[in-house]
Amino acid sequence: MKKNILIIGAGGVAQVAAVKAAMHNDVLGDINIASRTLEKCDSIIVNVLARQALKRPGLIAAHQLDAFDIEATKDLIRRTKSQIVLNAGSAFLNMSVLRACIETGAAYIDTAIHEDPSKVCETPPWYGNYEWKHRDECERKGITAVLGAGFDPGVVNAYAALAAEHYFDRIDSIDIIDVNAGSHGRYFATNFDPEINFREFTGTVWSWQNSQWTANAMFEVSRSDDLPVVGTHKTYLTGHDEVHSLSANLGVPDIRFWMGFGEHYINVFTVLKNLGLLSEQPVLTAEGQEIVPLKVVKAVLPDPASLAPDYQGKTFIGNLMKGTRQGVETEMLVYNICDHAETFAETGSQAISYTAGVPAVAAAMLIARGEWDCHRMANIEELPPVPFLSLLEGMGLPTRLRDAAGDRSFADEKLPAQKQARLGVS
Amino acid sequence: MKKNILIIGAGGVAQVAAVKAAMHNDVLGDINIASRTLEKCDSIIVNVLARQALKRPGLIAAHQLDAFDIEATKDLIRRTKSQIVLNAGSAFLNMSVLRACIETGAAYIDTAIHEDPSKVCETPPWYGNYEWKHRDECERKGITAVLGAGFDPGVVNAYAALAAEHYFDRIDSIDIIDVNAGSHGRYFATNFDPEINFREFTGTVWSWQNSQWTANAMFEVSRSDDLPVVGTHKTYLTGHDEVHSLSANLGVPDIRFWMGFGEHYINVFTVLKNLGLLSEQPVLTAEGQEIVPLKVVKAVLPDPASLAPDYQGKTFIGNLMKGTRQGVETEMLVYNICDHAETFAETGSQAISYTAGVPAVAAAMLIARGEWDCHRMANIEELPPVPFLSLLEGMGLPTRLRDAAGDRSFADEKLPAQKQARLGVS
Repeated sequence: MKKNILIIGAGGVAQVAAVKAAMHNDVLGDINIASRTLEKCDSIIVNVLARQALKRPGLIAAHQLDAFDIEATKDLIRRTKSQIVLNAGSAFLNMSVLRACIETGAAYIDTAIHEDPSKVCETPPWYGNYEWKHRDECERKGITAVLGAGFDPGVVNAYAALAAEHYFDRIDSIDIIDVNAGSHGRYFATNFDPEINFREFTGTVWSWQNSQWTANAMFEVSRSDDLPVVGTHKTYLTGHDEVHSLSANLGVPDIRFWMGFGEHYINVFTVLKNLGLLSEQPVLTAEGQEIVPLKVVKAVLPDPASLAPDYQGKTFIGNLMKGTRQGVETEMLVYNICDHAETFAETGSQAISYTAGVPAVAAAMLIARGEWDCHRMANIEELPPVPFLSLLEGMGLPTRLRDAAGDRSFADEKLPAQKQARLGVS
Repeated sequence: MKKNILIIGAGGVAQVAAVKAAMHNDVLGDINIASRTLEKCDSIIVNVLARQALKRPGLIAAHQLDAFDIEATKDLIRRTKSQIVLNAGSAFLNMSVLRACIETGAAYIDTAIHEDPSKVCETPPWYGNYEWKHRDECERKGITAVLGAGFDPGVVNAYAALAAEHYFDRIDSIDIIDVNAGSHGRYFATNFDPEINFREFTGTVWSWQNSQWTANAMFEVSRSDDLPVVGTHKTYLTGHDEVHSLSANLGVPDIRFWMGFGEHYINVFTVLKNLGLLSEQPVLTAEGQEIVPLKVVKAVLPDPASLAPDYQGKTFIGNLMKGTRQGVETEMLVYNICDHAETFAETGSQAISYTAGVPAVAAAMLIARGEWDCHRMANIEELPPVPFLSLLEGMGLPTRLRDAAGDRSFADEKLPAQKQARLGVS
């Protein structure tokens, strides 16, 4: 049982996390928010207070922090008595924040794999390059470190674990499909930090096929699916975090991630990439100034947070899984639909930030309640999925299932673990 | 009669100018080349010497110069005893080089309108913002300053003057059409300094219609013409230097400039422009670095000079002019065709640099010979066109005419001025 959460970062995901943490501060205790820019933390707190989001009177405070500075982060963890630290900021920060947690005993949560600013798309499995190198140390010291606790990675890992535990004898393939069917009304924008966003698509596309890593180029392989609510969408085989842990943990031979892109997005991306403007390697201007092109692209694009007020439409994220159940070939889609305007009304952020931030707070609550306080480093599929998905039912991210028995709410299922989870929530 | 030429700049145009000046050093005398980067001047000299381009033994020398530094430029003009200065470098330098010429008595030549790095597309006529403010002073001090002596502006102004003097009673419209029907084989590149190149297309498109300035947006108005040699091409109404002097000097009610663009160029340009990456105004990165986006785009694009070896195909530049001759409605096309591979073989540069650099050297020769040593500031259409076009016949840029009498070489015309010009050349 741990309490008091330190949220690192002050972008859209951190804003969602702060609102949701406030709505559950009876479980989480004090809420501290830290980022490089104090004013952005202050705005998040103003947003939380304006929404009267705090469930009960409690502390919510802002701190200036350079989270690359491990000693400063340790100091802040200790001063705020935070026992749970959520990195809702840049994936570049993961390793320094994890180090601060290991050295202070705090539980660690993030929502994406660590990245080195100077490298794009390292050797798979990506977790092996950074996070998993600290697995033994976490185990030895009893540190709880929950990796990739957003939606994808995060909830989709739990969907896979749920399917493996309760709906399949054997899973042959998992196709994770992520479609943003919403529209922000701008010429072009990324839905989260452009620097991280584009990095997903500039390197090799790694997928897990026939139980081995397979390399493709971005936009090389596509599929089209008629999806619930959002309709037919074309998606492209994309490298993504969750493939790198699910492939190691589930024994499923085919695990692929598919992301939806419109033609306009692909055109802009292709132009920028072919010109070299998405490069993370510095170039020299004629005047002798050294600059990373990607950072300039980031500077000219709209701030993702600024898109939220005008965002319309819905997101679809789900797992299409094939295998056998009681010896019979079966197929199941486990998914969530999230509405941009609804999440904006509730938290001030659009659905992309919402789907990443809410699960991270659910993970924090499960650590606070002890159910996920596992005293080791774990990816989401290694933790009990039912308490997580049950908690998300009431937090704005309901799960739906579709198989031969029809399309239905996960909340109406009668799994033994659900009864237990409901007791846990009450 | 003036001699000894100082060429400022060391890009593709300067390289062409150096080769051509060497081929006519009997007229021009010493050749001095100066730019910010001494090594680039050295390469130009190596190129000239390797081609054995010098007509007769003579001086060709390189100098390091920051041509924004007026005192340094004056000093170099005096030390090298240069009586003719050609700015074949950036249009940002015009005003400082002109000042150095005025104060040393040297003749001044440029190939494009002065630009302020911080401003795009100023109020028309553009010459009125900078060059023409010094007209009276040049007249008073007897300074020869020949503005816009490339192809367009430059030769096309002479085409207009030729038509007005010899082929029309009244010109109603001049449509200048510039098509690069060549291919460099790269994903995307500009044919000269991207910083200057893009600036042509990011502002308001000013044209002279019904004897007044008319504003359009880039790629808003297009036309399609079946052109000699290069075939049918779509061109777009574009703002361009020569419209700003021809409109003041010729009394023609409609003067428009049309540039050919492929769909791919327009797509890349549109993406970059809409994202704000062609802006000359600095932006601030998340890390606090201040940078002009356009300078980064320039840094990632291929060096225009590097395109020359692979460049294939031809350029078409010409004036389609309508009006009356001896009271009869008439239409005439005056044009040049230039071949990228041929200009590369001759000078080491492609046709875009060649068509800009050769006329500037022809202008220098006419100043050296006295015919254009006008002791005032003049745009090309204010100077006798026949000696200029006659000289260009033998310098690689022949003129062709097409009207009701057919398509023919300008060299075969029997204008009185041509006889005189031939005597001048001999």
